[in-house]
Amino acid sequence: MGSAVITFLTDYGLSDPFVGVCHGVITTRCPQARIIDLSHGIPPQDVRAGATALARALPYMPLGVVLAVVDPGVGGARRGVAIRAGAGHLLVGPDNGLLWPAALAAGGAQAAVDLSGSRFVLDPVSATFHGRDVFAPVAAALAGGAELQDAGSPIDPASLVVLEPLAPVVEAHALRAWVVAIDRFGNLELAATLSELDAAGIARGGPVLVEAGGRPRPAHAGRTFSDVAAGELLLYEDSGGALSLAVSCGSAAQQLSVATGDEIRISTP
Amino acid sequence: MGSAVITFLTDYGLSDPFVGVCHGVITTRCPQARIIDLSHGIPPQDVRAGATALARALPYMPLGVVLAVVDPGVGGARRGVAIRAGAGHLLVGPDNGLLWPAALAAGGAQAAVDLSGSRFVLDPVSATFHGRDVFAPVAAALAGGAELQDAGSPIDPASLVVLEPLAPVVEAHALRAWVVAIDRFGNLELAATLSELDAAGIARGGPVLVEAGGRPRPAHAGRTFSDVAAGELLLYEDSGGALSLAVSCGSAAQQLSVATGDEIRISTP
Amino acid sequence: MGSAVITFLTDYGLSDPFVGVCHGVITTRCPQARIIDLSHGIPPQDVRAGATALARALPYMPLGVVLAVVDPGVGGARRGVAIRAGAGHLLVGPDNGLLWPAALAAGGAQAAVDLSGSRFVLDPVSATFHGRDVFAPVAAALAGGAELQDAGSPIDPASLVVLEPLAPVVEAHALRAWVVAIDRFGNLELAATLSELDAAGIARGGPVLVEAGGRPRPAHAGRTFSDVAAGELLLYEDSGGALSLAVSCGSAAQQLSVATGDEIRISTP
Repeated sequence: MGSAVITFLTDYGLSDPFVGVCHGVITTRCPQARIIDLSHGIPPQDVRAGATALARALPYMPLGVVLAVVDPGVGGARRGVAIRAGAGHLLVGPDNGLLWPAALAAGGAQAAVDLSGSRFVLDPVSATFHGRDVFAPVAAALAGGAELQDAGSPIDPASLVVLEPLAPVVEAHALRAWVVAIDRFGNLELAATLSELDAAGIARGGPVLVEAGGRPRPAHAGRTFSDVAAGELLLYEDSGGALSLAVSCGSAAQQLSVATGDEIRISTP
Repeated sequence: MGSAVITFLTDYGLSDPFVGVCHGVITTRCPQARIIDLSHGIPPQDVRAGATALARALPYMPLGVVLAVVDPGVGGARRGVAIRAGAGHLLVGPDNGLLWPAALAAGGAQAAVDLSGSRFVLDPVSATFHGRDVFAPVAAALAGGAELQDAGSPIDPASLVVLEPLAPVVEAHALRAWVVAIDRFGNLELAATLSELDAAGIARGGPVLVEAGGRPRPAHAGRTFSDVAAGELLLYEDSGGALSLAVSCGSAAQQLSVATGDEIRISTP
Repeated sequence: MGSAVITFLTDYGLSDPFVGVCHGVITTRCPQARIIDLSHGIPPQDVRAGATALARALPYMPLGVVLAVVDPGVGGARRGVAIRAGAGHLLVGPDNGLLWPAALAAGGAQAAVDLSGSRFVLDPVSATFHGRDVFAPVAAALAGGAELQDAGSPIDPASLVVLEPLAPVVEAHALRAWVVAIDRFGNLELAATLSELDAAGIARGGPVLVEAGGRPRPAHAGRTFSDVAAGELLLYEDSGGALSLAVSCGSAAQQLSVATGDEIRISTP
């Protein structure tokens, strides 16, 4: 491990000192580590949203350690794990599906260890803050050059928890997909891609209908926000490759009154 | 360029991974760059608020690269630019007026380049996230020592987009000014200065009237929050030189029920 | 001072550029300083909440400089101070009780200086932003190796302002305690510890009653969130040693409709 970069993602938010305390633990244990705060705004306890955001961001992050904590089962039976994936990323966090899509995006899990009884954890380990007591110090040790096998007991990567994907439903001239994330601008990220739009036989570059809980609304299948007038609805491929909905100079989430987990139906007018 | 500091300002917020992904791109391209997150809380797509905040903060930032993105026109016709200003700041972002006041504050634009087709951008460039694909990698290259002229095609600095200023209206014993920003404490920053208060013949150090949408309220023209009792209204010069309104141990925004863009009238009682 | 780490805590929030501007001042004055943003989400002007958060986090932070600003009295009569505490922490901020519990946690205040007229402050010093103009540059100087006595005029550590603690009330088989903080997950931190629960004769590991403004509700005195079913109330020792209330996969703050400063009564069923 030449790299001392730690990419850090949680659902801790930034109002409380949780993130800062983890930075303190890492900096104490590995002063040369550089921490990139990828996001701490994952909706509380939303493992799937964290997993999706992490996997989509990973190609833009430097090779190194990934520390990810969205952990509703903290202190319970779920395992803590560290995983070597693809070309050399080391992923640290709870084994609840959070790390799996990132491991896949990095090239697949090559090796993994269970962190129970790891020599690197703080003493004592609290029952409710494993980000501070388990995952941060393990990430610091790996960033400092420790070997994966020294961080815990070897486990079969095939035993890691996997979340089943949220597949869209392709119909004749219609596509139904879930809203997986809503960003600050009110843009809706759907669990679908352009290829599924194509599979449904819905043409790009023209008018489509978008339906969220009842009334279908006209939208334009385009490329960027300025393809439609202010206040109008745009269906586009977002910067991470997901089919998305936006309102130019406005909020699609507000205009359509939808929340994460809602279903959207896109069809030919 | 000896400096590897990048001052980073956006309207991306911190709930989504946008800022973290830009950090990833910068750190991958220029590991020695140090990034200062000036603010990512500019109100969404509010170019003027971003421009004002950036220009007022710049005197306190180390000489180096400024990466600023408030970009409602992303993917459309607006240019991406890099500007050399004053004593050596290099400003990178969309050419929509966002960078101009900072360039002016730094001593004026000396040279500028259009970033279309820049050798430093990511491949491919998405239609909706030029912060990640264009501006961050260009900022990283400049922080790493690349020359401005190598970042794009030269353009005339006089062709850069300028936002017209929001001038206050000076009347006899009254001053009307816009609310340009509201901070976390509910303090209101006005588009006016003490010299305009003086020009209106309103005395400092005594009582004034403040009117926001109807009823005038008594306030004190003072120096700091403790100059008035808890719950009372203070007119003062804020730490950036703007005329401002605060409520001691309270929120002026709530007490006056105003929002950014509203007009305030200050007068002699 | 070998260490150049500055632990930074404020009530500035992250929407405005206040924190970023302080980073700019520090980085300009002491480029080698590493800043850990412990939290900037202390409720506005809540000195006690800031003091509690800082003292509880300090054991996890690297030895170095602590820069803390929650400062409703800025520009008024309160002193600015720097304190050497315990094994070598240097604490910088307003003398309003904010730093005292951290100094105590670090081993007690050994020496202190008043920062009025400090050679390290910016010129001019504004009336309303001492974080930028006084505390950040003093912290930068100390992180860069300046001696405490060079930062200001010596004062008696015994003269530093102390906040009286919020003691819980132990009754027969009941404990009354204040809510001192509510985190992002809606968990309630109480101004009480397990030893006071024991003193009240309330057994751990079984059912208890929790009362907030009227109706008592059943809860379980346990160890971690998964000890109760989703939606049920848990009384536990949090990761900082405080007695706390949580709702598994939910929000105790919402379920109990309480805010910081409210009183909670815990009793035997």
